[in-house]
Amino acid sequence: MSRTADINFRLILRIIGFLLMVEGAFMFTGLPFSWVYDGIQNMALLYSGIITVVVGGLLYWGFNGKRMQNNIGKREGYLIVTFTWIIISFFGALPFILSGTITNFTDAFFETISGFTTTGASILTDIEAVPKGILYWRSLTHWIGGMGIIVLSVAILPVLGIAGMQLFVAEMPGPAPDKLHPRITHTAKRLWGIYVLLTGIETVLLMAGGMDFFDAICHAFGTMATGGFSTQNDGIAGYSPYIQYVIILFMILAGTNFTLHYYALLGKFGKIWKNEEFRYYVWIITIVTVIISTSIIIIANSGIEETIRETIFQVVSIVTTTGYITSDYLLWPGMSWLLIFLLMFIGGSAGSTGGGMKIIRQLLLIKNSGLELKRLLHPQAVIPVKFNKKSVSKDIIFKIMAFFLIYMVIFAFGSLIMSLMGLDFESAIGSAAATLGNIGPGLGMVGPVGNYADVPMLGKWFLSFLMLLGRLELFTVLIIFAPAFWRK
Amino acid sequence: MSRTADINFRLILRIIGFLLMVEGAFMFTGLPFSWVYDGIQNMALLYSGIITVVVGGLLYWGFNGKRMQNNIGKREGYLIVTFTWIIISFFGALPFILSGTITNFTDAFFETISGFTTTGASILTDIEAVPKGILYWRSLTHWIGGMGIIVLSVAILPVLGIAGMQLFVAEMPGPAPDKLHPRITHTAKRLWGIYVLLTGIETVLLMAGGMDFFDAICHAFGTMATGGFSTQNDGIAGYSPYIQYVIILFMILAGTNFTLHYYALLGKFGKIWKNEEFRYYVWIITIVTVIISTSIIIIANSGIEETIRETIFQVVSIVTTTGYITSDYLLWPGMSWLLIFLLMFIGGSAGSTGGGMKIIRQLLLIKNSGLELKRLLHPQAVIPVKFNKKSVSKDIIFKIMAFFLIYMVIFAFGSLIMSLMGLDFESAIGSAAATLGNIGPGLGMVGPVGNYADVPMLGKWFLSFLMLLGRLELFTVLIIFAPAFWRK
Repeated sequence: MSRTADINFRLILRIIGFLLMVEGAFMFTGLPFSWVYDGIQNMALLYSGIITVVVGGLLYWGFNGKRMQNNIGKREGYLIVTFTWIIISFFGALPFILSGTITNFTDAFFETISGFTTTGASILTDIEAVPKGILYWRSLTHWIGGMGIIVLSVAILPVLGIAGMQLFVAEMPGPAPDKLHPRITHTAKRLWGIYVLLTGIETVLLMAGGMDFFDAICHAFGTMATGGFSTQNDGIAGYSPYIQYVIILFMILAGTNFTLHYYALLGKFGKIWKNEEFRYYVWIITIVTVIISTSIIIIANSGIEETIRETIFQVVSIVTTTGYITSDYLLWPGMSWLLIFLLMFIGGSAGSTGGGMKIIRQLLLIKNSGLELKRLLHPQAVIPVKFNKKSVSKDIIFKIMAFFLIYMVIFAFGSLIMSLMGLDFESAIGSAAATLGNIGPGLGMVGPVGNYADVPMLGKWFLSFLMLLGRLELFTVLIIFAPAFWRK
Repeated sequence: MSRTADINFRLILRIIGFLLMVEGAFMFTGLPFSWVYDGIQNMALLYSGIITVVVGGLLYWGFNGKRMQNNIGKREGYLIVTFTWIIISFFGALPFILSGTITNFTDAFFETISGFTTTGASILTDIEAVPKGILYWRSLTHWIGGMGIIVLSVAILPVLGIAGMQLFVAEMPGPAPDKLHPRITHTAKRLWGIYVLLTGIETVLLMAGGMDFFDAICHAFGTMATGGFSTQNDGIAGYSPYIQYVIILFMILAGTNFTLHYYALLGKFGKIWKNEEFRYYVWIITIVTVIISTSIIIIANSGIEETIRETIFQVVSIVTTTGYITSDYLLWPGMSWLLIFLLMFIGGSAGSTGGGMKIIRQLLLIKNSGLELKRLLHPQAVIPVKFNKKSVSKDIIFKIMAFFLIYMVIFAFGSLIMSLMGLDFESAIGSAAATLGNIGPGLGMVGPVGNYADVPMLGKWFLSFLMLLGRLELFTVLIIFAPAFWRK
């Protein structure tokens, strides 16, 4: 036992306990919707909140002690992050179960972790039949997940050394990225402020378009977290063009590095356009939209404004990994369809709530690939990748390539597992790509008009695992499976 | 113009001229088959051979000169390799055209470069109707291509610094990998000897199973080059189990590092099993065969020997990138089918005639991925990847990751282009994977029972380009498109 790593489990449980109390408190915020819309007899959220707060409190105060405060290392960091997402999903499933909305635990857990990982993959077949209080909680899981991701990407992952995340931190104004505490209190709070502000503005703009407060705030939660849960069976398709444009705009904002919003608030617009990742992000959306909408207009001969709107909506929705739907992209011409599938591997910007591999990584990998040719011609020369006019160390590029590789291996392996569960080729690769990338809708039976209800039980657990892997940048979860993690 | 690189085009043309004369001489070897089987009036091979030798001779003696000999650099190396494959494919298409077997140049070029790149993707719909002399030439293009690949992988690519190829050379007995000339004369000749010997043995074994000399040598050419052109419309399906087992064995040998055959000839069998790439190669074949045949036996309830034979045949055929067919794997259960598709991304061993990404690269990447987790826990420690018990430099791993990445980007881009040409999703990704990996049969319309006849003309040119890219380890071709290549 002396060779086993000295991990401070007490501290881990204490922190998770604290976060459970926060989760329980969030559940209570749904009570007004529950009681006003669904009737005063609806107690699911109340009971769930009480259970969650009580369990959280027991953990928090049960694992109190003096010696633990100074003892938070990397190993504790990985365990806290991974188990927080898993445990809040367990408790977050309670409202679905207690309200009778979802009758088996697998489905309830799938729906909840899909919420907290901001994926938006759903097993619900009739969303409009679900009590409003529960629908509110469902959308709120996205929003809470988004808050978690902001802390994670600005404060925790860079310290843990996850591929490329250091780069993002180098861009951040504020204290140096060497200590957890000051960054959490400093940067995360500032970015949370922006997150709350943008959610508020979107809610107001949606209400201005005719949505009621309930639908508006639920869709704002789903947008800002790049989640994708809607309150309607047909997603965003039934709403007016104005509302669709508002959601397009806020999906774009949610998929942008939040530091840039901070610059915008300070009026430093020059800094925004100078950010290469942002420029690349805008270019991807523009180019893919032009290609797809042109092909649809030529082939299907449909209305120009409508086609462009639906295309940009779908492109933005997939790139930002939101997963809202206005049209069935599987009915688009073949090439457009494949483009959408490829977009699933890009992902949002670093420091946004978007999932997937992240644009900054793709950008650096593409740049490095070009330079590899140059390096082949000049093997002695040092030819670094430049990002925002600064050299990126070969070490970071190395880590990002390893990230890409592991992502692709998990995708391939995941597709295999899903086809082993009986899914056809397209559904298998679609479900693996859409959950690992935290997008939601995939291809085939899990495509934009389908959902995950008919995936076999074991498959739902496996896809839940993929969502967690993708959302926590792979390594945070994988490292726990490494034997070295548990050794001294 | 002073900023333009000083490239010795005269030397390049002279060398290509020499190789054209060799190609022409090879064409003449088909004349006996042509005249005996098809009749003395068949002049296509004779005329093609004469044209090729004459053009080759004009280039060779036309670009004679004193100052050039000492002047062969990396740039010349890339250009010679790439243009040799293109130009011998142009001239190699002549027999198809002159015999009237293929009436348009696009198809003839596609068939020929598919031969020389040892891909085996065919546009011929009725193979048995083709004159024997032309079929012989078609199979011979594989065998010549295989010879080219052997020189390339042991002598040229390592010197040019192509990702991971240095590693393979480090394994080679013989002179150090710093000069082109001694290695070509030394190592390549020795490996060519093994190649010729194995081809001879296979021919004899196939004839022992009842094949005539013509079919036997054509299939031996197709096997040893990991090509895949057959002389029968139904590939290897119509032959006896004995013949299928012989072909399985020689596909495995062809996909093995030829240095290991050299060790075998020297009686050093211990060295063979110590080679990690070989062990991994055997494991992949074994494990995938067990998984697929089990699933087929359970689901389809078919005969055990037949199922295992067909499975191992198909698995070996795809892993070694040969592409011979005994059964339609698209009819296998979904998961098996996806496994076959994933195998397309593995490829043969380094130093074999197999194409694809190569097992050694996959092995090093998998190992490195595992170590990345360890490195995350111990950021200060130097944790190298080990291969055959020696440390592999981080620089080589970096290059191999870049190779993987570029391969995947080309695959994705290639799939897009093919779907733009009107191919459905599966055919698009299948044709891109099967040509880039030099396999031959893919998915959908280009699957085992289909062929490439119905791919649009532009698509055939693009797939020809993918075959060339894949066969020449990407960089050899891509580098020519880099602006830096043409600058001083």
